[in-house]
Amino acid sequence: MSIPEITQKLLAAKKDKGLSFTDLEKILGRDEVWIAAAIYRQASASEEEAKQLVEALGLDESYVKELTEYPVKGLGPVVPTDPLIYRFYEIMQVYGMPMKAVIHEKFGDGIMSAIDFTLDIEKEEDPKGDRVKVIMSGKFLPYKKW
Amino acid sequence: MSIPEITQKLLAAKKDKGLSFTDLEKILGRDEVWIAAAIYRQASASEEEAKQLVEALGLDESYVKELTEYPVKGLGPVVPTDPLIYRFYEIMQVYGMPMKAVIHEKFGDGIMSAIDFTLDIEKEEDPKGDRVKVIMSGKFLPYKKW
Amino acid sequence: MSIPEITQKLLAAKKDKGLSFTDLEKILGRDEVWIAAAIYRQASASEEEAKQLVEALGLDESYVKELTEYPVKGLGPVVPTDPLIYRFYEIMQVYGMPMKAVIHEKFGDGIMSAIDFTLDIEKEEDPKGDRVKVIMSGKFLPYKKW
Amino acid sequence: MSIPEITQKLLAAKKDKGLSFTDLEKILGRDEVWIAAAIYRQASASEEEAKQLVEALGLDESYVKELTEYPVKGLGPVVPTDPLIYRFYEIMQVYGMPMKAVIHEKFGDGIMSAIDFTLDIEKEEDPKGDRVKVIMSGKFLPYKKW
Amino acid sequence: MSIPEITQKLLAAKKDKGLSFTDLEKILGRDEVWIAAAIYRQASASEEEAKQLVEALGLDESYVKELTEYPVKGLGPVVPTDPLIYRFYEIMQVYGMPMKAVIHEKFGDGIMSAIDFTLDIEKEEDPKGDRVKVIMSGKFLPYKKW
Amino acid sequence: MSIPEITQKLLAAKKDKGLSFTDLEKILGRDEVWIAAAIYRQASASEEEAKQLVEALGLDESYVKELTEYPVKGLGPVVPTDPLIYRFYEIMQVYGMPMKAVIHEKFGDGIMSAIDFTLDIEKEEDPKGDRVKVIMSGKFLPYKKW
Amino acid sequence: MSIPEITQKLLAAKKDKGLSFTDLEKILGRDEVWIAAAIYRQASASEEEAKQLVEALGLDESYVKELTEYPVKGLGPVVPTDPLIYRFYEIMQVYGMPMKAVIHEKFGDGIMSAIDFTLDIEKEEDPKGDRVKVIMSGKFLPYKKW
Amino acid sequence: MSIPEITQKLLAAKKDKGLSFTDLEKILGRDEVWIAAAIYRQASASEEEAKQLVEALGLDESYVKELTEYPVKGLGPVVPTDPLIYRFYEIMQVYGMPMKAVIHEKFGDGIMSAIDFTLDIEKEEDPKGDRVKVIMSGKFLPYKKW
Amino acid sequence: MSIPEITQKLLAAKKDKGLSFTDLEKILGRDEVWIAAAIYRQASASEEEAKQLVEALGLDESYVKELTEYPVKGLGPVVPTDPLIYRFYEIMQVYGMPMKAVIHEKFGDGIMSAIDFTLDIEKEEDPKGDRVKVIMSGKFLPYKKW
Amino acid sequence: MSIPEITQKLLAAKKDKGLSFTDLEKILGRDEVWIAAAIYRQASASEEEAKQLVEALGLDESYVKELTEYPVKGLGPVVPTDPLIYRFYEIMQVYGMPMKAVIHEKFGDGIMSAIDFTLDIEKEEDPKGDRVKVIMSGKFLPYKKW
Repeated sequence: MSIPEITQKLLAAKKDKGLSFTDLEKILGRDEVWIAAAIYRQASASEEEAKQLVEALGLDESYVKELTEYPVKGLGPVVPTDPLIYRFYEIMQVYGMPMKAVIHEKFGDGIMSAIDFTLDIEKEEDPKGDRVKVIMSGKFLPYKKW
Repeated sequence: MSIPEITQKLLAAKKDKGLSFTDLEKILGRDEVWIAAAIYRQASASEEEAKQLVEALGLDESYVKELTEYPVKGLGPVVPTDPLIYRFYEIMQVYGMPMKAVIHEKFGDGIMSAIDFTLDIEKEEDPKGDRVKVIMSGKFLPYKKW
Repeated sequence: MSIPEITQKLLAAKKDKGLSFTDLEKILGRDEVWIAAAIYRQASASEEEAKQLVEALGLDESYVKELTEYPVKGLGPVVPTDPLIYRFYEIMQVYGMPMKAVIHEKFGDGIMSAIDFTLDIEKEEDPKGDRVKVIMSGKFLPYKKW
Repeated sequence: MSIPEITQKLLAAKKDKGLSFTDLEKILGRDEVWIAAAIYRQASASEEEAKQLVEALGLDESYVKELTEYPVKGLGPVVPTDPLIYRFYEIMQVYGMPMKAVIHEKFGDGIMSAIDFTLDIEKEEDPKGDRVKVIMSGKFLPYKKW
Repeated sequence: MSIPEITQKLLAAKKDKGLSFTDLEKILGRDEVWIAAAIYRQASASEEEAKQLVEALGLDESYVKELTEYPVKGLGPVVPTDPLIYRFYEIMQVYGMPMKAVIHEKFGDGIMSAIDFTLDIEKEEDPKGDRVKVIMSGKFLPYKKW
Repeated sequence: MSIPEITQKLLAAKKDKGLSFTDLEKILGRDEVWIAAAIYRQASASEEEAKQLVEALGLDESYVKELTEYPVKGLGPVVPTDPLIYRFYEIMQVYGMPMKAVIHEKFGDGIMSAIDFTLDIEKEEDPKGDRVKVIMSGKFLPYKKW
Repeated sequence: MSIPEITQKLLAAKKDKGLSFTDLEKILGRDEVWIAAAIYRQASASEEEAKQLVEALGLDESYVKELTEYPVKGLGPVVPTDPLIYRFYEIMQVYGMPMKAVIHEKFGDGIMSAIDFTLDIEKEEDPKGDRVKVIMSGKFLPYKKW
Repeated sequence: MSIPEITQKLLAAKKDKGLSFTDLEKILGRDEVWIAAAIYRQASASEEEAKQLVEALGLDESYVKELTEYPVKGLGPVVPTDPLIYRFYEIMQVYGMPMKAVIHEKFGDGIMSAIDFTLDIEKEEDPKGDRVKVIMSGKFLPYKKW
Repeated sequence: MSIPEITQKLLAAKKDKGLSFTDLEKILGRDEVWIAAAIYRQASASEEEAKQLVEALGLDESYVKELTEYPVKGLGPVVPTDPLIYRFYEIMQVYGMPMKAVIHEKFGDGIMSAIDFTLDIEKEEDPKGDRVKVIMSGKFLPYKKW
Repeated sequence: MSIPEITQKLLAAKKDKGLSFTDLEKILGRDEVWIAAAIYRQASASEEEAKQLVEALGLDESYVKELTEYPVKGLGPVVPTDPLIYRFYEIMQVYGMPMKAVIHEKFGDGIMSAIDFTLDIEKEEDPKGDRVKVIMSGKFLPYKKW
């Protein structure tokens, strides 16, 4: 996996500024996961969003243009080796068919959109060990018949 | 992908009985996704859970033993072809690195457990089209140093 | 690639009856490609559609139930070896990036839905050799920001 | 996937000039998808076409030679990760066999040519959401017997 | 690689009858390679051809129908392990680009058709060891511009 | 696929000189396909051949040494994406087993050598469209028993 | 496999200093395997640990920042080719299922954590040839039901 | 992964008898992991060991012969999907290179044998959660020079 | 890897007869490795050899025909998992390029034939542990120029 | 496959000096294949061996350090494309199982070591064409039971 150069530049600036993704969320009015996706060039920003981001990171405007382009998406290798990312692959391997069964039963034949889609990450404090909460919300798209 | 024979039997009985996963959730006191996972042989039931499930489906006890065994998990092909399941693979391809960045920032170096883990699926009614909501909650496991 | 047994049964019955997909299109009021997709268990029929299809093919109702189930979709090997199907893979290899560029320019960042989607096949008569015309129409789904 | 350097240069010039593919279509008298394919080095231009293109983009003639060469074609990874391009792969996975069945029935044993082939992309305005229309037209090539 | 059952039946009958492919060539008036392709279900026979073949092999007409169907083509694994077949893969690996260069120079941008195509195998007697001669002839298809 | 740098240099010089492979065939007294293979570093030239080639292309002698080295052969990806080269892969997928059957019948158990091997490409003029003729000739090597 | 540049720098400094991993274990108070993991950028050091390590190796502090970052983990190719590393892959291929059986019997359904995990390597002197002893200790994580 | 039939028979008998691997360890005088390996047909038993095992499981002697055969070893898919087994693959991905570095430093150039090799699994009781302890011991094999 | 049924039958008969491959070598006058290859259907026997083999194993003549057929060769998975066979793959990975360099230097550009080829296995007794000696002898085939 | 830079340097120096591997064998007192392996960084030299080698090639001592390091071994792609190296892969595909059967019969359950291993290449002069003789000798390692 090769991280785009612009991503490395933006992350370094973010570190230097001491800004968290949550800080950026407040500045840009966009969710921190979406902002991270824009920084990793998996989402395209509007010109205004790109300018706000670049300004917040204390960089000059030369990065704006690339951040507004529509990227070729998909960063990972076929099977991810990083343990954190692999767990999401494992969840799909283990719970994919059960999820398919439950979603079809609730909604009929179709899919959860990964485009009309949001993803939030929250920290659940727990005395037995904090928990990562991931909330995905995607529009249900029923299969069209024709 | 070959669906285990017992899964096919249980799903057929469930259909004949006209029971939804939500109905089974009420009967067993376990989440419908976990029940689907047990039926797909991705989770192991206790003897009591297996008996309740088999009884609810109107089947004889011969299925109990297999349901309590610890399965070899992971059903899918390396890259899933079913569009519903593929979308979760795509989410990992597109949002995997951004999620990694946000989780590390909130929690430090470590992962979200896929074992001490729950997964819920809800239907969000929406006039612009209902939405599938997937809520994952996994214990954060920090990397041990030694 | 293993063709489902029900597909083989339905295709054999269709051949015995001497019915073309176009004939079935007239009987069911659904497009012939969609009907072929239902027969190959890549689309799920309503109970009424399944009954009409089974009846048209002179088969008993035992096939109706399976035709209405929501299938695990995706028939092919990773890279198809059949020359007719491979050509569509080749088109994606050669024209995929150009199509991406043109679609993004016309619509912005997003995708053509493969779910809210129709596909027609027509025969264009041409003295230099007839042509296959494939018309795809999919709803444009813009990437949601959140 | 590595985009050829010349492609990046031409796309940057196109952006600077504020020209759309549709504008280039009018200037060159070739379809915008074909022009995009030439820019991505998936199609070879004649010297005249290359000169027109380079001139329209305000570049010097040094690019003409490369644009007229016969490229090694095929840009993508085996299974594309970009969601827009993946959807065309998914269409082949789900509808490949049904399309094969319908094409064979209409034309006999053979294939749709991907060489004697055209591809158009149109925007269908629709109050429920605009639609992407892709029209492929390829000569039917019957299998020769010998 | 799984050889179709019908192929095994036809080859066994051919062996019992003591017929060579060359004998079949004389009986059917089709090239022996094409006949072998039909037997391996890589080419579809007309009803008349199928009848002639089945009759020549002393089999009843029950095989005719399957021989006339349009097969899903492509028998081999991605990289063939059989040494005889592998050599053709190796030829493509080693001489593929040189052939591409020479064909383009002689014909322009396009391909040799594998559909409007014939393939002959001859034995060249040679005191230093007989030689296998393979003659392929495919229509040149120039890339269409549009 | 990465084309060796020397190949790019030689092809550029060949283009500048306006020499075809057929011209080089006359100058070197070697077949044009073999010369293309030497240029693509899939075959090793003798010092004399290398000098003749380099001289014909108007280059200095610095290229001679590399052209005489025994290369690591095999240029392509596992499954080629370039349509012209893919067709030869497809031919092996579709006609591989039939060719094996015919060659074994004519020669016994063994293979066609890809080393004691020649390959010619000819243009067959045809009013219905010119044809590419590829003639391979390889020594038959019978399996040794010991 | 590409070894990160920082790893190469640190290993070279370690060699120049004549320090073994065991020496570093004494200096840092961390196990030598963990230190090696930190050097290969598979584990993240605290700022203090990074400083100690850099100082011990006689390098300036410019390396501290990178050593504290949370790395994208996983160095190897899918199937390792290095014989030493391959043997661990082979152990998993041969003894994976037996280990699964024994662990499940001792602990129930769940896994050995690879995160709350330590790994030690010891030299067992043995007159018939010294032995490598690898001791892994990972927290057992039982599958949560919900 | 297909579990050999004999394995399924032996495991079922073991379950019926209510015997644990630890019980078998006491009866056979072999480590439980080795016994599990023999049952999964990854290790070959002597005739005496096979008889003891079969007798302990209350089965007739018909299984003895197969248990003494030298098996084709290696059960798993290339990348294991079962979470318990995957963790050992992940350990190799993350800690493979660090282990290589430490082993080379302690022993020189060579490998840990996976043949002259033992593997023990122990349960470490721990108030914060029991731990799985895996102890591997393999003879160090130095690379021979010749 | 699926072992052909005939192989299993022949090996069982060989075991019942208490015959070693060395015994068969004496009876047939062919090397034991070649005989093993014939039994595994990787080499084709003459009718006489097949009869001798079948008779030696005490089987009826029904196996003769299959043993004389020219098999589709190549048994293993892409990367072998069996440790004994894997070592030969490892040898190729580690010593392949060095062998290529030495062979080219001794013989020029070409290959060692795997067809005009013999392979012997001998036991070298050695007080430090017996050694497996594998002797391959293949005709050198120089690359033909044309 | 990327050849290490040091390998290219050493091979160039060897060529300039006009030294064969056989010459180096005489100078270093090590087998030419092992020397080639050291040059390709598949074997590690002692400091003395490295100095001798570097001196023989007329290079300065800067290469000594790298030659003594323990390399990450394994040069090739999964399936080699170079015909000379591929033949050894083919031998394993075709004769792997027969070799396994013969070795097990002669030695019991275990493997031929690829570490305590030597490999020689000899030229067998033969009027019908010289032969490449490859002699491998590896210690037999019996599977340990525990």
